[in-house]
Amino acid sequence: MKVHLTRRYGFSASHRLHNDQLPAEENQSLYGKCNNPYGHGHNYALEVTVSGPIDPHTGMVCDLGELDAVVEREVLARFDHENLNLVPEFAGHIPSSENLAARIFEILQAGFHAARLEKVRVEETSQNFFEYAGGTG
Amino acid sequence: MKVHLTRRYGFSASHRLHNDQLPAEENQSLYGKCNNPYGHGHNYALEVTVSGPIDPHTGMVCDLGELDAVVEREVLARFDHENLNLVPEFAGHIPSSENLAARIFEILQAGFHAARLEKVRVEETSQNFFEYAGGTG
Amino acid sequence: MKVHLTRRYGFSASHRLHNDQLPAEENQSLYGKCNNPYGHGHNYALEVTVSGPIDPHTGMVCDLGELDAVVEREVLARFDHENLNLVPEFAGHIPSSENLAARIFEILQAGFHAARLEKVRVEETSQNFFEYAGGTG
Amino acid sequence: MKVHLTRRYGFSASHRLHNDQLPAEENQSLYGKCNNPYGHGHNYALEVTVSGPIDPHTGMVCDLGELDAVVEREVLARFDHENLNLVPEFAGHIPSSENLAARIFEILQAGFHAARLEKVRVEETSQNFFEYAGGTG
Amino acid sequence: MKVHLTRRYGFSASHRLHNDQLPAEENQSLYGKCNNPYGHGHNYALEVTVSGPIDPHTGMVCDLGELDAVVEREVLARFDHENLNLVPEFAGHIPSSENLAARIFEILQAGFHAARLEKVRVEETSQNFFEYAGGTG
Amino acid sequence: MKVHLTRRYGFSASHRLHNDQLPAEENQSLYGKCNNPYGHGHNYALEVTVSGPIDPHTGMVCDLGELDAVVEREVLARFDHENLNLVPEFAGHIPSSENLAARIFEILQAGFHAARLEKVRVEETSQNFFEYAGGTG
Repeated sequence: MKVHLTRRYGFSASHRLHNDQLPAEENQSLYGKCNNPYGHGHNYALEVTVSGPIDPHTGMVCDLGELDAVVEREVLARFDHENLNLVPEFAGHIPSSENLAARIFEILQAGFHAARLEKVRVEETSQNFFEYAGGTG
Repeated sequence: MKVHLTRRYGFSASHRLHNDQLPAEENQSLYGKCNNPYGHGHNYALEVTVSGPIDPHTGMVCDLGELDAVVEREVLARFDHENLNLVPEFAGHIPSSENLAARIFEILQAGFHAARLEKVRVEETSQNFFEYAGGTG
Repeated sequence: MKVHLTRRYGFSASHRLHNDQLPAEENQSLYGKCNNPYGHGHNYALEVTVSGPIDPHTGMVCDLGELDAVVEREVLARFDHENLNLVPEFAGHIPSSENLAARIFEILQAGFHAARLEKVRVEETSQNFFEYAGGTG
Repeated sequence: MKVHLTRRYGFSASHRLHNDQLPAEENQSLYGKCNNPYGHGHNYALEVTVSGPIDPHTGMVCDLGELDAVVEREVLARFDHENLNLVPEFAGHIPSSENLAARIFEILQAGFHAARLEKVRVEETSQNFFEYAGGTG
Repeated sequence: MKVHLTRRYGFSASHRLHNDQLPAEENQSLYGKCNNPYGHGHNYALEVTVSGPIDPHTGMVCDLGELDAVVEREVLARFDHENLNLVPEFAGHIPSSENLAARIFEILQAGFHAARLEKVRVEETSQNFFEYAGGTG
Repeated sequence: MKVHLTRRYGFSASHRLHNDQLPAEENQSLYGKCNNPYGHGHNYALEVTVSGPIDPHTGMVCDLGELDAVVEREVLARFDHENLNLVPEFAGHIPSSENLAARIFEILQAGFHAARLEKVRVEETSQNFFEYAGGTG
């Protein structure tokens, strides 16, 4: 029996949407107030979905504590209470929530192996959600 | 990299579930208190999911302001603070949330082209959700 | 030990904000789209707060089932899935959420005596809340 | 037109994660504080998703009252306000939320036929969600 | 400037409402299914409100980390993932949410002195809230 | 009849908790990761509570559109998508949520006169709420 298991985390960060290679007016027109020069911030919610068969010995798909440890060490420690424009993972990349979801998926795919990683969902606000499930769809 | 992006909107409307071609008792039995003659209302939540590759220049799938503009002009302006039984889109149709989800999907499919429309979700109350992804399943 | 106990209920109804004694333009200017002629609707949330000492025999302030029964019989049965403009309680009154909160407070004050009624809170949407605590403040 | 319809329910129960066939230290290491000897509890949220074409006569996929009746009689009556370790459905099984989701899916698949059962989602807390869609994935 | 600051925590526990000194039928009639012999459980939310002037040096009322440490050590460590009927704090007392709110207030009043304790709120479910502000009202 | 009316708004901003007049270590010890040099951000929720008698002509305490206009022009336009450390209102002040609540109260007290301003509530995250009701308590 294959069960999908989702765990929800939160972190706070600031970012500014800006592409250095575009002129100021194009940045302003592309990103609107998200281009304000000194950044703004969000309480991001992060949902990680993994799947696998139920282990009959434990009744569980995997040890959630293990998932928590990887997310804590590999994701929250990098992004929580940071300015995403200055984080090494976004050097040369725009810290949009689309890119944030993709980057977190890649980080977890490299670091978590106790179940199959299915999807990463980033909620930028309660009105905007971004999901990445790997691959090129 | 293909990302799914969901945006959440809200509107308030009233409706009455009633089929003119059925006798009163059958309407009453089918719809229960949703058949009360003078209607009742809901705060509907609407989630629109679109998908596409991340544009490397912008870091975004599409301009959310463009999606907002279409939803505002084509969906909210038609349904917000209205009686759905009297809206042209439901002439000859029962304004159930199933039909509402399907109608909104069709409206957006015709009017929004900046990314692929994946799904429309209508929350009638915090206990009832309806999703339509196009096609006949 | 005096404890405040709050219980949350929900109901769906439609209403139209309109004052028969005012000209059409004034109604339109006062109520905006809430004056649309055929009404619109909401999922109202209702929170009822009562207080009293903890009964040492039961560990409770009062029997919540008793509060539920009064709210069900006296409030939900009158307003749920109704058009508030046509409900006898609003004959000659505008079914605004302010008046709805006050009317529900009066109904519960007359019908519930197992603890002290402290406050009624009506949530019209997740952005608008109305509270009435009796008296003239 | 095939629409997915989800309905949300709630119930409260206690459980203890423990495998009788494993030594105490292994149970403690596997389940952490969820292995506390006298159990603990949760307010579970249950979402049931069904799908089907919209019936043009009714505007609905199926009668939600029928789904409610099955869930009430077959699921909530068994699990609400119970200790899951002592419920017959979990004799010989660990009452993890993974197993709870799978068991509820099987119960509903046997008892509800008015539309296609798509998925069962159990929210153990607002941080942990478990989904089962049948089959072996 | 006196500001009220509220911090929200969560814990999971089981309880059974039962008064040993009353006959079985009276327990059943008083507590309904909350009297089920093997208990049931909840995800409790706990909100602690403290107040004080804003310290002009720090811009804060008090160090939230200090409040967290007291709540963690004095409240969550006692009640999280426990059966409340078996916790020393409820020996001889019914572990109702009314009593839980009062007990937590007393524990915090004894252990936290960095700001004035105003109120403790316990949410048993998303429909039932209990508040205790000290004193006998 | 005096009714309390609350309206909920949202804005996103970044801030850094830092007191220029204190040494680096003391800032670090006071504010922890909120002192990170490049700031972080939040989706703030803002609730404004006003009160007054129900106007019998309108059924309302005041025109919510008027409150919206003041909040939009005086509060959201200043703080939304900004770095609070760089906003003139916080020159020489620490942009803590305590100070943010107090500042917004003062701004609204000066700019909104259609009903009595009762309280401002700032939610920094879903775990931290700050309320200011004027005066020195």
